[in-house]
Amino acid sequence: MNVEETIKKLNLKFRDIDGERLILAITCDGNKNVLMVAFMNEEALKKTLETGYMHYYSTSRKKLWRKGEESGNVQKLIKFYRDCDGDALLFIVEQKGVACHEGYYSCFHYKIEDDDGLKITEEYYSKG
Amino acid sequence: MNVEETIKKLNLKFRDIDGERLILAITCDGNKNVLMVAFMNEEALKKTLETGYMHYYSTSRKKLWRKGEESGNVQKLIKFYRDCDGDALLFIVEQKGVACHEGYYSCFHYKIEDDDGLKITEEYYSKG
Repeated sequence: MNVEETIKKLNLKFRDIDGERLILAITCDGNKNVLMVAFMNEEALKKTLETGYMHYYSTSRKKLWRKGEESGNVQKLIKFYRDCDGDALLFIVEQKGVACHEGYYSCFHYKIEDDDGLKITEEYYSKG
Repeated sequence: MNVEETIKKLNLKFRDIDGERLILAITCDGNKNVLMVAFMNEEALKKTLETGYMHYYSTSRKKLWRKGEESGNVQKLIKFYRDCDGDALLFIVEQKGVACHEGYYSCFHYKIEDDDGLKITEEYYSKG
């Protein structure tokens, strides 16, 4: 893959998010479970395509971040899609271990219940 | 559902996106297909919970937007989840018709191919 050429063809629409030029990156596994959503600057996207492993931009630490660099829970890129307006990419990955830093498979493990507010659950996600 | 109370319990982290205070809203159908990603301000979330139909905030038109208000392709809310850092919600909906204004079931219908760049496809999504 010619990474520079591919990124150019994507014709992305970077948004101004917390003072940076970023796009949205939604990451799913091969069973269509949504694992997480994060941000990418152009460098994070470039590193992802060059290495075949997911890289994001951390708005809190203000730096490029290789997913799993500390935990070992890396995400191997399988394929990816762009949305119609070009401000978001959907990445299909092979997730090693869990995606969430709180130890859950998906970052979306809080279900909103009418009576109780947030309830921790993994009901929606299946690793199988 | 007491909407005000529920929103308070969510403890959301609104980000500064294109000059507005917004969260990310990822919308999926009951088969785990990712239909779209958009933004919500607090009012859009409130309207969504009050009416049971998805509302978003349009950054280009700078206003609240009821999904399907013109096309009729409304999204009925089934349930929703919050992610670990509170800047994103994942909504499971019943999608009427198609989600994308370009006429595709999902907004993520551009697959990135090594040789061709963007290729329009619906291979990843199944309505069944």
